[in-house]
Amino acid sequence: MAGLLGVAVLGAGRMGADHVRRLDRVVSGARVAAVADPSSESAQRAAAGIEGASVHTDPLAALAAPGVDAVLVASPGAAHEEAVMGAFARGLPVLCEKPLASEAAGALRMVEAEVRSGRRLLQVGFMRRYDVEYRRMKAVLDGGGLGRPLMLHCTHRNVSSPPDFTTGMLVSSSVSHEIDASRWLLADEVHAVRVLRPAPSSGAPEGLGDPQLVLLEMGRGALVDVEIFVNCGFGYQVRCEAVGERGSVRIGAEPAVVVESAGEARTAIAQDYLVRFSDAYDREVQDWVDATRAGRVTGPTAWDGYAAAVVAEAGVRAQASGEREPVEYAPRPALYGG
Amino acid sequence: MAGLLGVAVLGAGRMGADHVRRLDRVVSGARVAAVADPSSESAQRAAAGIEGASVHTDPLAALAAPGVDAVLVASPGAAHEEAVMGAFARGLPVLCEKPLASEAAGALRMVEAEVRSGRRLLQVGFMRRYDVEYRRMKAVLDGGGLGRPLMLHCTHRNVSSPPDFTTGMLVSSSVSHEIDASRWLLADEVHAVRVLRPAPSSGAPEGLGDPQLVLLEMGRGALVDVEIFVNCGFGYQVRCEAVGERGSVRIGAEPAVVVESAGEARTAIAQDYLVRFSDAYDREVQDWVDATRAGRVTGPTAWDGYAAAVVAEAGVRAQASGEREPVEYAPRPALYGG
Amino acid sequence: MAGLLGVAVLGAGRMGADHVRRLDRVVSGARVAAVADPSSESAQRAAAGIEGASVHTDPLAALAAPGVDAVLVASPGAAHEEAVMGAFARGLPVLCEKPLASEAAGALRMVEAEVRSGRRLLQVGFMRRYDVEYRRMKAVLDGGGLGRPLMLHCTHRNVSSPPDFTTGMLVSSSVSHEIDASRWLLADEVHAVRVLRPAPSSGAPEGLGDPQLVLLEMGRGALVDVEIFVNCGFGYQVRCEAVGERGSVRIGAEPAVVVESAGEARTAIAQDYLVRFSDAYDREVQDWVDATRAGRVTGPTAWDGYAAAVVAEAGVRAQASGEREPVEYAPRPALYGG
Amino acid sequence: MAGLLGVAVLGAGRMGADHVRRLDRVVSGARVAAVADPSSESAQRAAAGIEGASVHTDPLAALAAPGVDAVLVASPGAAHEEAVMGAFARGLPVLCEKPLASEAAGALRMVEAEVRSGRRLLQVGFMRRYDVEYRRMKAVLDGGGLGRPLMLHCTHRNVSSPPDFTTGMLVSSSVSHEIDASRWLLADEVHAVRVLRPAPSSGAPEGLGDPQLVLLEMGRGALVDVEIFVNCGFGYQVRCEAVGERGSVRIGAEPAVVVESAGEARTAIAQDYLVRFSDAYDREVQDWVDATRAGRVTGPTAWDGYAAAVVAEAGVRAQASGEREPVEYAPRPALYGG
Repeated sequence: MAGLLGVAVLGAGRMGADHVRRLDRVVSGARVAAVADPSSESAQRAAAGIEGASVHTDPLAALAAPGVDAVLVASPGAAHEEAVMGAFARGLPVLCEKPLASEAAGALRMVEAEVRSGRRLLQVGFMRRYDVEYRRMKAVLDGGGLGRPLMLHCTHRNVSSPPDFTTGMLVSSSVSHEIDASRWLLADEVHAVRVLRPAPSSGAPEGLGDPQLVLLEMGRGALVDVEIFVNCGFGYQVRCEAVGERGSVRIGAEPAVVVESAGEARTAIAQDYLVRFSDAYDREVQDWVDATRAGRVTGPTAWDGYAAAVVAEAGVRAQASGEREPVEYAPRPALYGG
Repeated sequence: MAGLLGVAVLGAGRMGADHVRRLDRVVSGARVAAVADPSSESAQRAAAGIEGASVHTDPLAALAAPGVDAVLVASPGAAHEEAVMGAFARGLPVLCEKPLASEAAGALRMVEAEVRSGRRLLQVGFMRRYDVEYRRMKAVLDGGGLGRPLMLHCTHRNVSSPPDFTTGMLVSSSVSHEIDASRWLLADEVHAVRVLRPAPSSGAPEGLGDPQLVLLEMGRGALVDVEIFVNCGFGYQVRCEAVGERGSVRIGAEPAVVVESAGEARTAIAQDYLVRFSDAYDREVQDWVDATRAGRVTGPTAWDGYAAAVVAEAGVRAQASGEREPVEYAPRPALYGG
Repeated sequence: MAGLLGVAVLGAGRMGADHVRRLDRVVSGARVAAVADPSSESAQRAAAGIEGASVHTDPLAALAAPGVDAVLVASPGAAHEEAVMGAFARGLPVLCEKPLASEAAGALRMVEAEVRSGRRLLQVGFMRRYDVEYRRMKAVLDGGGLGRPLMLHCTHRNVSSPPDFTTGMLVSSSVSHEIDASRWLLADEVHAVRVLRPAPSSGAPEGLGDPQLVLLEMGRGALVDVEIFVNCGFGYQVRCEAVGERGSVRIGAEPAVVVESAGEARTAIAQDYLVRFSDAYDREVQDWVDATRAGRVTGPTAWDGYAAAVVAEAGVRAQASGEREPVEYAPRPALYGG
Repeated sequence: MAGLLGVAVLGAGRMGADHVRRLDRVVSGARVAAVADPSSESAQRAAAGIEGASVHTDPLAALAAPGVDAVLVASPGAAHEEAVMGAFARGLPVLCEKPLASEAAGALRMVEAEVRSGRRLLQVGFMRRYDVEYRRMKAVLDGGGLGRPLMLHCTHRNVSSPPDFTTGMLVSSSVSHEIDASRWLLADEVHAVRVLRPAPSSGAPEGLGDPQLVLLEMGRGALVDVEIFVNCGFGYQVRCEAVGERGSVRIGAEPAVVVESAGEARTAIAQDYLVRFSDAYDREVQDWVDATRAGRVTGPTAWDGYAAAVVAEAGVRAQASGEREPVEYAPRPALYGG
C-alpha cells in the first residue's frame, strides 16, 4: 500500500482514545479515518484536531466511512462480535482488543466466520507478546538452553479495580493476559484450571474475592500459577518466571532509576498498564499497521482469542467449584494450523 | 553458667561434623564434650584435635560422658526419638536438627515426654528463623505496615537430590522448612495441604516427581505456594515473598557481587545450604548456647517440630491423592501456649 | 502542517541509514524526501524502496530537492558546517547529529549564523536528553528533594573503538555526551576540565590512551567524573549517579531479564548504542518532527552544541597537559537566553 | 594454646566496648582479661558482668594484668603508639584499630620497633579485608579473568560526621579504608594523590569541605577515585567497582530485603559501619584470635598501617595544594617482604 493506512477506531473510551492518539501521533504509516463511540462526545473528543477523521455513534457507519482500510476495535467486550462481524463483511483487517468476546461461544462464532472468509483478517490485542521483556523470555525458552519448561510463576497486580469489577473478571479479564502469555511462551494449550481463594483483602471492595491464585495445567505437563490481585493498592506489576529443566528466566523487575534518601533506596513502581506496556502497545499497533499495509495478518489469531475465552470460562467455573475444571475446545480449524 | 557449655554432638555426618566445627571454633561459650556416631571412624574424624572431646558409637553413652551439659542431635531423623528421650531422661537441654521425627507420632511422643518433664528442654533446628533476611521479613510483617498477610510465594531449589531421596521427602524433608517458616512468619497454623505435580524434569532421577507445587491453607485464610525443585541443576535458592493487603516484602536475591564480562552481568548462585545459611546456623547455635548457659530455652519448640511433621504427613497424602488434605492436630499442650 | 514532513537526510552511513529507516518506518508524520551521501551507492541503499525519496551525492542538491521541508544531518562532523549553513540559507529546520562541529570555531560560526537569521532553526542530536532514564533523573533533580547536586559519577563504555579512533576523540566524540548531559542535568556550565590517564588497557589499540578519567568542574561548584573506556571489550554501558545534599539518584542498570543456569544469574549487556538508546533516538526524532510540523524548534540548541565543543577542546588540551584547563566561552547570544 | 586467649582491650569507647562484647560473646577461643579506659566508668561499663576481667585507667597496667595473652587497641589514634610500644615491650601480640597512628612518623616508629623485635607481633584493624564481598572481589581480580585492573571507583558515605571531625580527617580517617583496600585489592602501592573539592554540601558543618573526590595513582598505573561524603544524611554506604581490561566487578549493593508499598519498591540502607561491617569485624577478630592461639600473626601488617598513614598525609597536603602530591616511603623492611 503506497499511502497511509486509514483506520477506523471503534470505541473511544480510555483504551480507544489512547489508540487514536497512537495512530495519529506515534505509529508510522497510518492515519485515523474514523472514530465511533455510542457517546458522540467521547468520539469527538478523541478525534479532535485530526484532519480527515469522521466521527460516528454507529460502529457500522464508521466501517463504511470514506478512507477506511482497516479497523481497530477498542469498544467493551460485549460489542466486539458485532464490530468484528461487520469488518469481516467488508473484508477489512481488524485489530480487536482483548478479550475477543465476553463468552467463548461468541469468540467461536468469530473464528467460524473468519474460517468461512477463507483467510486471516483478525488479530487479537494481546499486547504482552510485543513487550521487549516477554519477547526476550520467549527467545530464551525457544533457544532451548534451559530445557523443557516445567513451571511458570506469574504475578499480576493492579492498584485498584474499576467500580463494576466482578470476581469472575479477575479471571476473564485480568488473567486472560496470563492465559495467552502461557499458551504463547510454552507453545501449548491449557488442559485444566484450578482457582484457590485466600481470605480476601480488606482493601478490596465488599464481595470481591481478591486476591486469588489461578493454576493452569498445560497439555504437555507444565504448571502455571498466577497471583491475581487487582486491589493491591501499591502499583501495577506484571512479573513472570519460567522454570526449565536446567535453569530459569524471569522478567518484570522495576525500572532501574534508583533514588536513595532518608535511609532507603527506592524505585518507583508503575501505577498503570498504559504506562508499563506503553512500548508494547506502540509496537503492537506499528507491527499491525506494517503487516496490514503489506497485505499480511500476523500476531495473535482469532483462535488465540477463542482459546483464552474457553480457558477463562473454565476458570470462572473453578472459582465457584473449588475443583479442577478441565477445558474442552472446539476442533481447531486448519486456518490456524489445526 | 560460669564455664563453657559442654555439648555432646550425636551424629557425625555432614551436618553433625559441621556442628562440631561450629561449637569448637565459631561460637562463643561452648566446647565439644562428646561426639557419637555409629561409625567410630566418622566420630573420630569429627572430634580430631578437639581437646577433651570423648568419642562414642552409642549415643546414650555420649550423653553420659563427663562434662556433657547439653546435646545437639544431628543424626538421621529416625534416630532422633531415642536421642531426645535419652536427653530428657537426664534433664539435658537439646537442640535437635529438623525434622524432629520421621513420623508425626514420634514427634508427638517427644512433645508428650517434654510436657511430662514439666519444662521446656528442646529446641528444633529450624535455622531459617535465624537468617537475617527472614528475620527482617518477619519484622516487616509484624510491623503491620503491609496489613494482614494474604499470600506467601516460596521457591526452594537444590542443585540435586541425594541418592536415596524419595518423592515423599520433597515434602517431608525439603518443604518442612517452608512449613515452619510459614507458621512462624504468619503466626498461624496450616489447615490443609494440596500438591500439584507438573511433568517431572528429565534432570530428576527416574521415578522422582520433581518439581512440585505445594499449597498450604493457613488457619486465618492466607495461602502459601511453594515451588520445590530438588534437582534444578543450577543452584541452591530459597526465596520468599509475602503479599499483604497494602504491600509486599520479599527476600532471597543473590548476593551482590556482580561480575561483568563477555556481554553479561553475572552473579554467582550459592550451591549449598551450608553456604547460603551458614550465618543462620552460626546464629542459631550461638543463641542456643547463650540461652542454655542462662538456663533458658528459646527458639522453635517441640510443638513446632510436631506441627511440621503433621503437615508434612498431610502433604505426602496430598501427593498421592491429588486432593486437598486437611491437617488434624493433637491438642496443643499449655507448655507451648496451647 | 497538514501533510507529512519531508526530510532530507544528509549522510547515509550507519547512523544516517538508521535515521532514514526511522523516518520511513518508525516515526509518525514524516517521510524521507531526499538522501545524500558522497557514496551514491550508500545513499541508494539507504533510500531503497522508499517512494518519493530522491538520491544525491551533493548535500546541497539534496536540500534543494522537491518536497524537502527539513533536514537531518548525519554526515561526519567535518561536513556539518557546510550542511547546516546550506539549510540556514534556505530557512530549513535542521536536526544535526553531535558533535555539532569538529572544532569549536565552526560551532560558533553556526551559532552566529543562526543568530543572524533571527530565529532558532537548529537542534543538536544529544539523544540522551530523550532517554527515559535520563529524563526521570532530571525530574528527580529538578524536583529538589535531593537538594543541590554536588557530584555526578558517569561511566561510558564501548565494546571497541572504530579503526581511526584517536585519544582526542575519547573526549571530543565520546565524552561529548557526558559534557552535554552534565550541562543539562545540572543546568550549569563547565568551567574547567582535567583528564587523568591510567596505564592503558592492553585491549586498546597501540597508542590509544584508553581508558581515561575526565573531570569537569561546573560553574556552581559541582564536580563531574567520567570513566571513558572505549575498548572495554564486554559491552556498551552508560551509567550516571547524581549525588545531592540529601540523597542520590542513579540510572543505567542492565535490563531486567534474568537467566539463571549453571551456577549463575545472568543479565545480557547491550553491545551497541543504537540498541541501548534505540528508544531515545526514536523519541528525539519524533519530537523533532512534531515540533517542526508545529513550526517550533525545541531540544538542544546550537549553543549547546558550541558549549560541548568548547569544553571538549579544553578536555583535549587537558589530556596533553595533565593540568586543570579552564574553559573560555564566547558571549552567549540572547537567542539562547544569554 | 590450650585455654582461652586472654585479651586486654585498651579503650572502651564505642569501638572498644563493641570489641569487648565481641570477645566475650561472639568469638570462640577468647576471653576478656582486662579493660582499660581513661574513664574508669567507661571501662567498668564495658567490662560489667564479665567474669575475670580487670578494669584499669592506665593502659600499661592493663597489659600487666594477670591472664593477659594479647592486646586489642581501640583507643583514639593518638594513644596507639604508647599502647603498641607497651605491648611490644612485653612481647604481646596486638590487634590495633586503624589508623595505626595519627602521623606517619609514629607509624614508622612502630614499624621499626617491630623490626627490632625480630618478628611480627602487630595486626592493623583494616576490617574490610575480612568482608565477604571484598574478599570475593579480590578473588575475582586475583583469578585473572578480568585482566589487569585499570581503575577502581569507590564510594564511601556516612550519615553524619562526629562533632570534632575536620576536613583533614575525611582523608586521614575515612579514606584510609579505601587507601588500604586499594593497596590490598591491587597488590600495589600508591604513588601520588590528588583531591578535588566540589562546593561543600549545606548539610555539612560550617567549614567542613564535604564531599570530596580523592584520586590515587597506583605504582603500576591503575587509577583510584573515591567519593568521600561524611554528611550524606541518608545512610552508610561503601561501594567499589574494579574495572579490568576485560571486565568489571563491583560490590556494595544494598541487602536484598525489598518492601513494596505506596508506589515504591524500597530497600533499607545501613546507617552505621558497625552494622554494615558487623560480620567483617567478627571474622577479623576470630581470625586474629585463632592465629594468635596458634602462635602466628596474619592480617594487615604494621607496614600496611604505615603506608596508609603516609598516603593519608600526602592526601591532606593535596587537599590544601589542589595539586598532585607524590608519596614518599621509607625503605620497606625485609620483615614485610621488602
